[in-house]
Amino acid sequence: MRTPTKTLTTAVSTLLLTAAATLSAQQPANVILIIGDGMDDHQITIARNYLVGSRGRLTLDQMPMRGVAQVLTVNESGQAVYVADSANSATSMATGEVTSRGRIATTAGSDQPIPTIIELAEAAGMKTGLVSTASVTDATPASFVAHINARFCENPEAMQDVEFSGIKIGDCTQHLAVNGGAGSISEQIARSNVDVVLGGGSKHFAVNSAGGSTSVSDLASANGYHVVTAAADMATAPADQKLLGLFSPGTMPVRLQGEGGREAEKPVPSWANHISRYIGSVTMPEPMICEPNPGFAGMPSMQSMTEIALARLRNDSGFFLMVESASIDKQSHERKPCGSIGELEQLNEVLDSALAFAESNPNTLIIVTADHGQAAQMIPEESLFAAFGAPVFTRGRLARIKTPEGTIMGVNYATNDFIMEEHTGVNIPVFSNQTGVGKIPTMITQPQIFELVREHLGL
Amino acid sequence: MRTPTKTLTTAVSTLLLTAAATLSAQQPANVILIIGDGMDDHQITIARNYLVGSRGRLTLDQMPMRGVAQVLTVNESGQAVYVADSANSATSMATGEVTSRGRIATTAGSDQPIPTIIELAEAAGMKTGLVSTASVTDATPASFVAHINARFCENPEAMQDVEFSGIKIGDCTQHLAVNGGAGSISEQIARSNVDVVLGGGSKHFAVNSAGGSTSVSDLASANGYHVVTAAADMATAPADQKLLGLFSPGTMPVRLQGEGGREAEKPVPSWANHISRYIGSVTMPEPMICEPNPGFAGMPSMQSMTEIALARLRNDSGFFLMVESASIDKQSHERKPCGSIGELEQLNEVLDSALAFAESNPNTLIIVTADHGQAAQMIPEESLFAAFGAPVFTRGRLARIKTPEGTIMGVNYATNDFIMEEHTGVNIPVFSNQTGVGKIPTMITQPQIFELVREHLGL
Repeated sequence: MRTPTKTLTTAVSTLLLTAAATLSAQQPANVILIIGDGMDDHQITIARNYLVGSRGRLTLDQMPMRGVAQVLTVNESGQAVYVADSANSATSMATGEVTSRGRIATTAGSDQPIPTIIELAEAAGMKTGLVSTASVTDATPASFVAHINARFCENPEAMQDVEFSGIKIGDCTQHLAVNGGAGSISEQIARSNVDVVLGGGSKHFAVNSAGGSTSVSDLASANGYHVVTAAADMATAPADQKLLGLFSPGTMPVRLQGEGGREAEKPVPSWANHISRYIGSVTMPEPMICEPNPGFAGMPSMQSMTEIALARLRNDSGFFLMVESASIDKQSHERKPCGSIGELEQLNEVLDSALAFAESNPNTLIIVTADHGQAAQMIPEESLFAAFGAPVFTRGRLARIKTPEGTIMGVNYATNDFIMEEHTGVNIPVFSNQTGVGKIPTMITQPQIFELVREHLGL
Repeated sequence: MRTPTKTLTTAVSTLLLTAAATLSAQQPANVILIIGDGMDDHQITIARNYLVGSRGRLTLDQMPMRGVAQVLTVNESGQAVYVADSANSATSMATGEVTSRGRIATTAGSDQPIPTIIELAEAAGMKTGLVSTASVTDATPASFVAHINARFCENPEAMQDVEFSGIKIGDCTQHLAVNGGAGSISEQIARSNVDVVLGGGSKHFAVNSAGGSTSVSDLASANGYHVVTAAADMATAPADQKLLGLFSPGTMPVRLQGEGGREAEKPVPSWANHISRYIGSVTMPEPMICEPNPGFAGMPSMQSMTEIALARLRNDSGFFLMVESASIDKQSHERKPCGSIGELEQLNEVLDSALAFAESNPNTLIIVTADHGQAAQMIPEESLFAAFGAPVFTRGRLARIKTPEGTIMGVNYATNDFIMEEHTGVNIPVFSNQTGVGKIPTMITQPQIFELVREHLGL
């Protein structure tokens, strides 16, 4: 039984906590939503092993709230689909609605626009921002600001008879301005009121806007955007204009690459092993380290883009900022584990900055999550079945990475044998800072992220 | 600011909570540690999709605490190894020490026994139990009760020149009784003081004990075990004896199987596709449902074994019970997703029983976790790259499962091309009931599970 003194102490603590909560509630409500594209637990573990060692902890790992989200996808008829893409999963988070693969904030089947969290925040007088290491027109950022039936309609020239590698993959004809639509994704961004948009994708703004003789970039300028293309120009951009930063033609170059640009490679079995899997031998890919990618030189880091965005968004009415580390996913599609590791490192640095911001802006909710799973899987460097003496190896592609702690980490890519790996259907992690503790259940659906953000912003 | 009335209410609530905590602390401390072998987030998502639908929730998903554990493994020299086996990972949980693959509660390199949580609990006068759907001599249960250098030394005839499929895979000569050792795993169990041991593995008790003319089973009887081999005999076993239940020769048959016993199969590309991956076609495995495995008939369910164990272990001094769903892992090794799904369902039922027990025995800590990741990965039923028109398919083995919600779930096994899949190195989930909330950090190392259990039991 507690003594009366202890009871009094508890009562005083309660009063102090209440006072702190009141003080926090008086601060503007901010949300920083950090999305690691393809960042499932496997990708995090691979990056952790390389960056801080198997016993180390990323900033991510030290978040006070950790749970998972169910990734929900439907087809155009509304039936369950078990593996998402970035368009439908970002739409879940941006709008609270489950849709079909490839769709940007539009409904499955009926193709209707769905209001996004950015639109709701703007309507309430809050500031908004989007930062991505992909093109800002890519599926994840696009789903927060644009509405269109197909993610590949990124610019006015990619609206009809869209081809990819010579194959016709569809169109967005019904969303053309001449058909009463809002046009391509870059045009929708150029006409938007998002206060800060930073990332890659300048090529999608260099083409002429639909039916016009000026570029989409000019359209953005006419709509009040200060457009920059060099990292150094972000900091000096006028404070009274919206900011559009486009630092590469498409996806921004990544920080790390495999030694000499290497990616995962196929083990090569001997002739005899083709006869029986019990005999012969196999030549495994040579081990490699990760090294800086020369192409990254001159690029703003994800952290620097985020810090610029935070400085510009801070205001008395609150803000919503989405930051995407896009190439955890894109490099995994290309079987480049070092690329994914470097981009997860960038995400972790962004989180450091976000946590520092929340320290001095206490009503800031930080959520870190992924959109869907990815292909890369850690498999044993020495097979569990090595004692059999037979050559045991993957029919996929393997990277044997020499880690700083001195051993080899085997990363396997084997979802298909095509030019790019597939996504996977695993549920994905959700983290939050202290502001989310007690408010975010340990398991949510991906659309609930929209609800949690809306609730925190009071929308 | 709170009103004085509210402050008083808070103070009263605090007193009531304190009273509840005091009452709970007066109850004996119990721990139920449920291990899903190979049960990473991917395996859970696959089972959830099949058992309750993509939007459904397993009991597991509704646990109030959810986090992850870093799986730590070393080689004999103490260097980091990134993919564990069930022996070293169970040793982490049973002893708090990181060891090498294949070792049962012994140190890497120096081969010294490490005290297990069961030994500590017994020394403190608590009851102890082990339930597994594997042989009770298999790596996971063994690591809680035995000490030996190699997991395959499960019985007296498997101690020297041990062969598997005709290949010599090692020995445990130094642990033979004639060399001053404790003998094989089954002998160590037979000589143990574990109150309840239930699972498979009767063949390991049928052979003669080392140097003797009686079986290991007889050795167990002589040591006070009531030995049963039929499910129905569990309930009538005398309460004043230890109970050893062995319900199958080795691993217990699983509950579910693929339609007609099918497992994942290789997609078969056409002749033309061998020339170029952009041309030709592919024949995918036919979809299948999961169906009851006829071999499961007559087996006790994991839940019934657990309920028998709980009834026998409940006492005024507290207990430690480990329950393993072994074949989530074993069926994934064999590329049998339906098998894994059924065994995850069994684990979920065990959890229902454990939660009901904790309801009436409030000082019971339930921890549910895995030991390591497994191979099965959900990949898209329709490739993300279907628009290319080329045949996109895995070079591994694929099961296309017709789920009760009416669509197809693709489960890919592609860690190797050998007779069994490999484990994976992903960090693994950790769940607890309310008793663990606030005590278990959102990220722990696997050896910390030992510490958490020890702390709860006051050892």
